[in-house]
Amino acid sequence: MTTEKEKIANKYFKCNKRERTAFELGIKLGSLFHQFIGSPVSEKNVEILANAMEKTTERQAYVKSAEIHINLERSKKGKKEGIFEYTTLTEDMIEAKVLVEFKSVEAVGELKYIEELNYPLMYISKLD
Amino acid sequence: MTTEKEKIANKYFKCNKRERTAFELGIKLGSLFHQFIGSPVSEKNVEILANAMEKTTERQAYVKSAEIHINLERSKKGKKEGIFEYTTLTEDMIEAKVLVEFKSVEAVGELKYIEELNYPLMYISKLD
Amino acid sequence: MTTEKEKIANKYFKCNKRERTAFELGIKLGSLFHQFIGSPVSEKNVEILANAMEKTTERQAYVKSAEIHINLERSKKGKKEGIFEYTTLTEDMIEAKVLVEFKSVEAVGELKYIEELNYPLMYISKLD
Amino acid sequence: MTTEKEKIANKYFKCNKRERTAFELGIKLGSLFHQFIGSPVSEKNVEILANAMEKTTERQAYVKSAEIHINLERSKKGKKEGIFEYTTLTEDMIEAKVLVEFKSVEAVGELKYIEELNYPLMYISKLD
Repeated sequence: MTTEKEKIANKYFKCNKRERTAFELGIKLGSLFHQFIGSPVSEKNVEILANAMEKTTERQAYVKSAEIHINLERSKKGKKEGIFEYTTLTEDMIEAKVLVEFKSVEAVGELKYIEELNYPLMYISKLD
Repeated sequence: MTTEKEKIANKYFKCNKRERTAFELGIKLGSLFHQFIGSPVSEKNVEILANAMEKTTERQAYVKSAEIHINLERSKKGKKEGIFEYTTLTEDMIEAKVLVEFKSVEAVGELKYIEELNYPLMYISKLD
Repeated sequence: MTTEKEKIANKYFKCNKRERTAFELGIKLGSLFHQFIGSPVSEKNVEILANAMEKTTERQAYVKSAEIHINLERSKKGKKEGIFEYTTLTEDMIEAKVLVEFKSVEAVGELKYIEELNYPLMYISKLD
Repeated sequence: MTTEKEKIANKYFKCNKRERTAFELGIKLGSLFHQFIGSPVSEKNVEILANAMEKTTERQAYVKSAEIHINLERSKKGKKEGIFEYTTLTEDMIEAKVLVEFKSVEAVGELKYIEELNYPLMYISKLD
């Protein structure tokens, strides 16, 4: 965005730049999750869907890069096979790693299903 | 799907095969629309997002092919430019054409913004 | 919509009115599914989410009524308990019944998880 | 969640508790936005949709409260009237205020269309 408009936007924030970076990271992981959950997916479109998720995430503000992997195996383990040869994307299948940078602060956020928690956790794996 | 399971599924339907084909077509257009609306999009990811939408639609039951185009121009016309260099996918930007086949009945459905209606219309353009 | 605009829209359709009704029904079920999958849900918001899904479906063209039930039990059966006290809405939890009417043709469509298919089936249960 | 599992989850985070709170807030705003964009909405279901968005947000981890308003006026200003009496929810129509608390740190995040930015801004309006 333009420097001028960015300055206007920044006035709305009541936090320091590290907290802002963490906030921007959270937005991206929450967006990713809720935008694509439910998409039909099988071995035939899994690569292109993951790629589109990466490139779509990379369009958002302050994102430097995104790496996304869809783990179809998790789906196969958790569900019996349905009548059609695809499943729908569920949260436990997404493995994402997003790098954002705001005013020289870089942060990495991850989304990953954690076995011992039985939960797809979004977390900050690096912030500096 | 397996022939056996498909037979079981078919028993639930109280309609003829042309009506079934029309129904399947409607499902695909409704799904496409509501799954991807809201995705960040710009010139940099527009091709890959449209491609992922095609391949995702093609995974669904009875779809033979899908052609999808995202019209970024419509977005530019309708909105002033925001502070970041992307927009979110809106219904009037999608141009889709989906071919389904059920028991040798083929039908083509389209989603297109119709100027004189000011509305993104989903319609059956061919059924035979 | 206005009679005049509806006439313009109808010209785009190459099918009879029963097929059109089936198509409209498919759109509504596909939309419902892909719009709401992924929403956080627990006993505390299940009623209001189902109600919003009904009222949202009823806003769409040609819908006369929608009845939606979210079956949290299905979620409990299929998954171990996560670390937080909610789950995300999955397709097998939705039980929907939608009535549409187009030019005096009425049709009922349903979305229901079918045990013997291991699949959330969308089907036309009545068309006349 | 249980204290024990929460402890396990917390080990994944490489940040302080204020940054964590900011991150959790970002997740909720990103989720809200991408989950509900595209929903059909009119005066008839606007209250119940906003209410469901609030209650759904409140189910998520660390959220204490959510206030959501859908501004249909923005839609009327920006678009000509379509052929049906509803529109789809767009990002500029949502006004949200979410309060999260993590380990006694409270933060308020807002989502609001900012006229001078021509952009629906998500920001931290309070963190302490």
